[in-house]
Amino acid sequence: MQYTERTSGSSAETVVAMSDEMSVALLPNADAPDAPPLMAPGRPTVAILGSGDFSRSLAVRLVACGVSVVVGSRCVKRIAPGLFPDAVELKDQEGAVARADRLVFLALFPEHYPSLLGLRASLAGKVLVDVSNAVKLGRSRLSNAEQLAEMFPESVVVKGFNVISAWTLQTGAQDGNRQVLLCSDSVEGKNEVAQLARRMGFHPVDLGGLRFAQDLESVPLGLFPLWRGPVLTTFLLFLFFYGYGFIRGILLPYLANGRNAFYRLAFDLVNESLPAVALVTLALVYLPGLFAAWLQLWRGTKYQRFPCWLEGWLLRRKQLGLLSFLCAALHGVYSLCLPLRTAAQYRLINAAYTQVKAGVEEPWDELGVWRSDLYLSFGVLGLSVLSLLAVTSLPAVGNILTWREFTFVQSGLGYVALTLSVTHTLVFGWNFAFSAQAYAFYMPPSYMLAVALPCAVLVCRCFLLLPCISGRLARIRRGWESKRKCPVSQHHHVVANSTCPEV
Amino acid sequence: MQYTERTSGSSAETVVAMSDEMSVALLPNADAPDAPPLMAPGRPTVAILGSGDFSRSLAVRLVACGVSVVVGSRCVKRIAPGLFPDAVELKDQEGAVARADRLVFLALFPEHYPSLLGLRASLAGKVLVDVSNAVKLGRSRLSNAEQLAEMFPESVVVKGFNVISAWTLQTGAQDGNRQVLLCSDSVEGKNEVAQLARRMGFHPVDLGGLRFAQDLESVPLGLFPLWRGPVLTTFLLFLFFYGYGFIRGILLPYLANGRNAFYRLAFDLVNESLPAVALVTLALVYLPGLFAAWLQLWRGTKYQRFPCWLEGWLLRRKQLGLLSFLCAALHGVYSLCLPLRTAAQYRLINAAYTQVKAGVEEPWDELGVWRSDLYLSFGVLGLSVLSLLAVTSLPAVGNILTWREFTFVQSGLGYVALTLSVTHTLVFGWNFAFSAQAYAFYMPPSYMLAVALPCAVLVCRCFLLLPCISGRLARIRRGWESKRKCPVSQHHHVVANSTCPEV
Amino acid sequence: MQYTERTSGSSAETVVAMSDEMSVALLPNADAPDAPPLMAPGRPTVAILGSGDFSRSLAVRLVACGVSVVVGSRCVKRIAPGLFPDAVELKDQEGAVARADRLVFLALFPEHYPSLLGLRASLAGKVLVDVSNAVKLGRSRLSNAEQLAEMFPESVVVKGFNVISAWTLQTGAQDGNRQVLLCSDSVEGKNEVAQLARRMGFHPVDLGGLRFAQDLESVPLGLFPLWRGPVLTTFLLFLFFYGYGFIRGILLPYLANGRNAFYRLAFDLVNESLPAVALVTLALVYLPGLFAAWLQLWRGTKYQRFPCWLEGWLLRRKQLGLLSFLCAALHGVYSLCLPLRTAAQYRLINAAYTQVKAGVEEPWDELGVWRSDLYLSFGVLGLSVLSLLAVTSLPAVGNILTWREFTFVQSGLGYVALTLSVTHTLVFGWNFAFSAQAYAFYMPPSYMLAVALPCAVLVCRCFLLLPCISGRLARIRRGWESKRKCPVSQHHHVVANSTCPEV
Repeated sequence: MQYTERTSGSSAETVVAMSDEMSVALLPNADAPDAPPLMAPGRPTVAILGSGDFSRSLAVRLVACGVSVVVGSRCVKRIAPGLFPDAVELKDQEGAVARADRLVFLALFPEHYPSLLGLRASLAGKVLVDVSNAVKLGRSRLSNAEQLAEMFPESVVVKGFNVISAWTLQTGAQDGNRQVLLCSDSVEGKNEVAQLARRMGFHPVDLGGLRFAQDLESVPLGLFPLWRGPVLTTFLLFLFFYGYGFIRGILLPYLANGRNAFYRLAFDLVNESLPAVALVTLALVYLPGLFAAWLQLWRGTKYQRFPCWLEGWLLRRKQLGLLSFLCAALHGVYSLCLPLRTAAQYRLINAAYTQVKAGVEEPWDELGVWRSDLYLSFGVLGLSVLSLLAVTSLPAVGNILTWREFTFVQSGLGYVALTLSVTHTLVFGWNFAFSAQAYAFYMPPSYMLAVALPCAVLVCRCFLLLPCISGRLARIRRGWESKRKCPVSQHHHVVANSTCPEV
Repeated sequence: MQYTERTSGSSAETVVAMSDEMSVALLPNADAPDAPPLMAPGRPTVAILGSGDFSRSLAVRLVACGVSVVVGSRCVKRIAPGLFPDAVELKDQEGAVARADRLVFLALFPEHYPSLLGLRASLAGKVLVDVSNAVKLGRSRLSNAEQLAEMFPESVVVKGFNVISAWTLQTGAQDGNRQVLLCSDSVEGKNEVAQLARRMGFHPVDLGGLRFAQDLESVPLGLFPLWRGPVLTTFLLFLFFYGYGFIRGILLPYLANGRNAFYRLAFDLVNESLPAVALVTLALVYLPGLFAAWLQLWRGTKYQRFPCWLEGWLLRRKQLGLLSFLCAALHGVYSLCLPLRTAAQYRLINAAYTQVKAGVEEPWDELGVWRSDLYLSFGVLGLSVLSLLAVTSLPAVGNILTWREFTFVQSGLGYVALTLSVTHTLVFGWNFAFSAQAYAFYMPPSYMLAVALPCAVLVCRCFLLLPCISGRLARIRRGWESKRKCPVSQHHHVVANSTCPEV
Repeated sequence: MQYTERTSGSSAETVVAMSDEMSVALLPNADAPDAPPLMAPGRPTVAILGSGDFSRSLAVRLVACGVSVVVGSRCVKRIAPGLFPDAVELKDQEGAVARADRLVFLALFPEHYPSLLGLRASLAGKVLVDVSNAVKLGRSRLSNAEQLAEMFPESVVVKGFNVISAWTLQTGAQDGNRQVLLCSDSVEGKNEVAQLARRMGFHPVDLGGLRFAQDLESVPLGLFPLWRGPVLTTFLLFLFFYGYGFIRGILLPYLANGRNAFYRLAFDLVNESLPAVALVTLALVYLPGLFAAWLQLWRGTKYQRFPCWLEGWLLRRKQLGLLSFLCAALHGVYSLCLPLRTAAQYRLINAAYTQVKAGVEEPWDELGVWRSDLYLSFGVLGLSVLSLLAVTSLPAVGNILTWREFTFVQSGLGYVALTLSVTHTLVFGWNFAFSAQAYAFYMPPSYMLAVALPCAVLVCRCFLLLPCISGRLARIRRGWESKRKCPVSQHHHVVANSTCPEV
C-alpha cells in the first residue's frame, strides 16, 4: 500500500492508494438483503481516457469506492509506475474502451477530442462523460460537450464533474464542493453518472439538456463575479478622495504659496484617503437595508420584489463590508507607522528646538490631550468591532451561528462599528469645522465629506427604531399586508418588476 | 434557465433555477433494479403554503432534487414572475393542497395559522410540516406545532426544518448545517419527512414526540449561550481593574496632591486594565484542567463525574481563551498607539527641553534599554502565539487537525503563551516590586495583582510534570482505577453527583 | 430530554439525548416499499464495552440514529446517572455481549484487552470493532488489532473509527472528518461496520486486510508531518541571519572598536533577521514552480514525474507561504514597536540636544523623507497582500473559490506580494549599496543577502512571460508532447523515476 499525497494539505487529506484486496472487500455479500445501499450488485468497470492529474485523482477515488478502473492512454509505456493505484489497469485507448461496461470518462483537454475519432466504433453505445471546461468565456461557439456529441453521434454524451477540482476528487467531498452538476440529453446516461457520483460521495444536481453545457463550462472560469462591483466602487472612491486631497493639500498650496509638499503623496495622502473610503463603504453596506425597509413600509407589503439595482446591491453587502474592513485596517497600520517616518522625527526634533529657543516649556494642552486620547480609543475600538464582523463573515464561522446570532453580529455589531467610526472621525475633527482654517481654498477636509453619508445612515436608522415604525415593519416582515395590496379581481396585476437580468 | 442568486455568497453557491426538463430527467428508469437509492419510484408532489423567502428557497431545492412542487398563496397574482422556478406550479391555497400527495409545508408565520382553518377538510389526512420558530423564548404556552395539532386534529403534524436557514436550503447542506431536527407523534409522518430531507441532502435527526417541539422551536433563538458566562466574567474583571486603577492612579493622587490626571481615563487606564484582564482570563483557561487533573488523582479514577460548576467551566475554555486573545490584541494595539498621543509628544519635547536646560546629554541607561527591549520582545512573541491558538480555534482549521496536533497546539502552545505573557509582565515590572514607589497608597500596581494567578497556574502545572505524578495521571486517564473505587456489593453507591442542570 | 453538552462548541453542536420514543420512531414501516434506504429492517443491537468518553459519544450517536445500544462496564454501579442516554442499557460486560446481535465495540485502551479474555466464549462469532490508536509510533510490534485477533481467534476483528475523535462522533460528521477508515480480513465484518458507519452519516473507506492496521493506528499520531521540513528550513534560515547579523553588527564592532552594542540582541537583531527570513521563504514558495516549468519545457512533456525532492517541495508550498507570512507579520509588529523603546527615545532626545547645541534647526532631508515614506508604504501594502494570501489558505475560504479564482489569488497576488516586498527592501536600501559604509568588515547587510534570491525568482518569472515560452508551456500543460517523447516501440522505456519514498 502506498501513501499518495499529490496535493498540499494536512495529514487528514492523506489518500491511501488501494490494493486489489480493497476493491474486492467492498463487494457486498450477494445474498445479504441489507446490502449497503450505495453499492450496486456486481462491480462496474469504468474507463478513463487520459493519464494526467484529473485522470489520476478520478481513478484513485473510484478505486477507493469499489469500482473497477481501466485507464487508456496514448502512450502506456510513458506512465510512471506508482502513478496510478495497483488496482488500475493501464491499457491503450482501444483496449480501455473495450473493457468499460458503459461509462467512459474523457479526461483530455477538448482540443484533443478529434484524436479519438478513430475509436468511434468502439465508443458507440457507451456513455461519454465530458469533464472539460471552456477555454475562454465566449458565447459564440458550441460548447465542448455539444461538439463532442456531433463527433460521436452514436454515443451518449453527459457533461459533468467539470466544477470539481482534482484535489476535491482525491480527498473527498468537503464543504461547498459536494455538488456535481450534470447535463445531458439522455435521461438514462445522466442517471448512470448520477449513481456513480453518489457512490463517490458527491451530490448530483441535474441542469437539464445538453444545451445548458455552455453555462456549465463557464462556471469554473468565474473570477469573483460578486466582487467586481464593490471593488470598482471602492477603487473609484479611493481615486476621488486621493485626487481631492491632492488638489486641496498639495497642488493648490503649491500654486498659491509655492509650498512644496509633494512628499505627502507617498504616505500622508494615502492615509487620508483610506479612512474616508472605509467610512463611505461601511455606510454603503447599511444603506440598501434602509432603502429596502422604507420601500416595504411605503408599499405596505413584503411580497413585491425590489428594483434590480437594489437586489444586486443587497447581494453585495458582504463584499462591501470586507472591503471597508480592509481599508480601515490599512488606515490603522499606516497610522501606527506615522512615528517611524523621517518627517515625523524631523517635526519632533524641531519642535523641541523651537521650544528651547523660546525658553519656555511646552504648555500642557488639556483639551488637545483629551481629544487625541479619545479619538485614538474610538478608532481602536471601531476597528476591533469591524474585525469581529470580518471573522463572522468566514464561511466556517458563519455556518455555525444561528440566525439570531448572525443577525446580532452583522446588524447589531455592524451599527456599533459604524457609530464608533463616526465618533472617531467627529472627535478627530473636534472644532475644526467651525474654524476658517479648515476650509482651505473653500474645500473642506476629506473626512468631513466622508462622514456625511454615515451620519445620514445612522440618523435614518434611528427613525426606524421608533416604536410605531418598527412595529409596522415587523408586522410587514411577518407576512401582514395592507389591504390595498391584495386585489380580488384576477385581471388586476400588481406586479411591478419584470425578471431582473442576471444580477 | 435563470441564475437565481438571492443571497450573498461566492460563485460556488450559485443555484440554477430549473426547467421542467430537469425534473423529468431525474426520474429513474422504472425497471432498472439499481435505481438510485435516494429516488423513490414515481415523482412525489409536495405543496408549500406561503410565498416568502423560505417558501422560495424550499421550492428551488425540491425542484433541484426532482420533486414536483406546487406553491399555494393567498394572492397568486401578486407573485412576481421569475420569483419561483418555472417547474413550480402557482395556485391558490385550496388548489395547492388538493394537488399534494401527502406533504404540505406551512411556510407561514405562526400567527397566520388560523387563516388556514378554512382548509381543514382538504388538509385532513395530509402531513403538515411546521417550519416556524418560537416568537420569543417563553415556556408558558403551547409550542406552535402543538397549537397547529389542536387546530387540525385530522392532519398529522411534523415539526422540522426550522433550524435550517433559507440560505442553507438554497445552497445545499454544508458544514455544520446538515442536520434537520424532526419531532412528531406520528412515526409514518416523521419517516416521510425524513425521506424527503435525505433526498435534499440533509441528515434527519429524530427528537421524539411533539411535546419536544417547544425545545426545538427555541434552538434558533439561542444567542451565544456558551459565551454569556465568559463575557460576563471578562467584563467584571475589566470593571474591577479599571476601578482599581482609577482609585490608585487618578482619584487618590487627586485627593492627596491635587494632581489632575483625569485625562488618563480615556486611554492610559484602558491600556492598563486590558492586559490585566487578558492575563487573568488566560489563567482561567488552564485552571479548570488543573482542578480536573487533581480531582482525578485524588479520586484515583476518571469515571466519576466532575462537579457541575467544573464541567461548565471546562466547556467554556475556548470562549475564555478567545476573549483573552481579544483583550491581549487590543492591549497590543493600544500600546502601539502610545507614541501618537499628544501627551507622549509633550513628554518627549519637555524631556529634551529639560535635558538642554541641564546642559548635559541624556545618560545611556543600559539596564533600562535591556528591560524595554526584552519586555517588548516577549510581549510580541506572546501575542503571536496567542493568535496561533486563536486561528486553530476556527472550526475549519480545528477540524483538519488530528487529535495529537490539536492537543499540541491548544495545550502545549497554550502554556507557552501563558509563560511568555507572565515573563513579559515580570520583565515590565523589573525591580519595581522592591521599591516603595510602586506601592502608592499601599496599593500595588494592577499588573502585580494580575500576574499572581497565572504564576500559580504555571507552578501547579510544573508539579504535574513530575514523573511520578504524571505517570499516575496518565494511567488513570487510560482507564486504570485504584482498587477502593470499584465496590463489589450491589448496594453500595459510589455515585457522588446527580444530573447537572443544563450547563 | 436532557441537553448533553460534553464538549466546547457553539450552540449548533448541541446534541440532544434521546428518549426511548425516539429510537422507536425511526423504525420504518415494515411494508413500505420505499423505506429510508439507510435503515435496515429491524432494529440492530450493538454492544459497547467500556464507559469512558468515546463510549458515551458513540452511544449517543448510535441512539440518535435508531440503533439499540447496550453498554458493558466492569463496574456498572459506578456509572453516574445521566451520563448515558436513557435508551441505553447498562449491564456488566458478559450481559452486554450476550445482548448484542453481531457488533461489539471495544471502547477500551488496548492495555486492557487481556481483561476481556474471560469473555472469549461469548465473543465467538461476534464482530469486534477495535477503535484504539497506537500508544507510540513504533513499527516493531504487532498492531493492537492483530494482537486482538490473536487473543480472540473465533471472533472477527475489524479495525475502524480510530481516526474519528469523540467530539466528531457526537456532533456529527463535518468538514474533513467524514471518512471512517476500515480494515479487516473479513469482508462480511467490514460490510456490517460500513453499513453502521453510513447509518451514522459517515463515509466508510476500505483499506484492505488487517495487516494495514498498523498504518491506520498511526494516523492520529501524526504531528504536522507536512510542516516539519518548512519549520526546520525557516528556523535554520533564522539562525543563519541572526548569527550573521550578530557577527557583523555586534561582535566585530566590539572586537574592533570596543563598542558595546549587545543590547541589540533582544530586539534589533530579531527585527533584522525576521524580514530576511520572510523574503527568502517567500521566494522558496515560488521557486519550485519555476523549476517544474523549466523541467516541463526541457522535457517537452508534462507526463514525466518530477524528481522526488521537487515533488516534496511542491507539496509544502502552502506551509512555506504561511511561515513567510508569520515572519513578515512579526517583523511588522516589531517595527511598529520601535518608537516605544527606551533606546529610540534616547536617540530622539539627544538628537534634539545636539541640534540645540549646534544652534541650527535640523535641515529638511527631502530624499530621506521620500525614502522613508515610500518603503513604509510598500511594506504595509506587501504585508496586506500577504495576509490576503493567508486568508485564502484557510480551508473554508479555499474550498469556495473556483480553480481560476484560487490560481488568481495564490499565483497572481503571490507574485504581487513578492514584488512589493522586494521593492520595500530595495527602497530601504536606497543607495547604501553603493557606499563603502554598508560593507562593514567586507560583509554586506542582511537584507542585501536576503533580496538576492527573490530578485532571481522575479527575473526568471518574467522570462516565462515571454509569448513564445509561455505559449509552449501552456500547450505542454494541455497535453501536447514533443514527438521524441512518445516511443512507438514497446520495449523502449522512457520512465525516469522510480516510486518516490513517502514524501
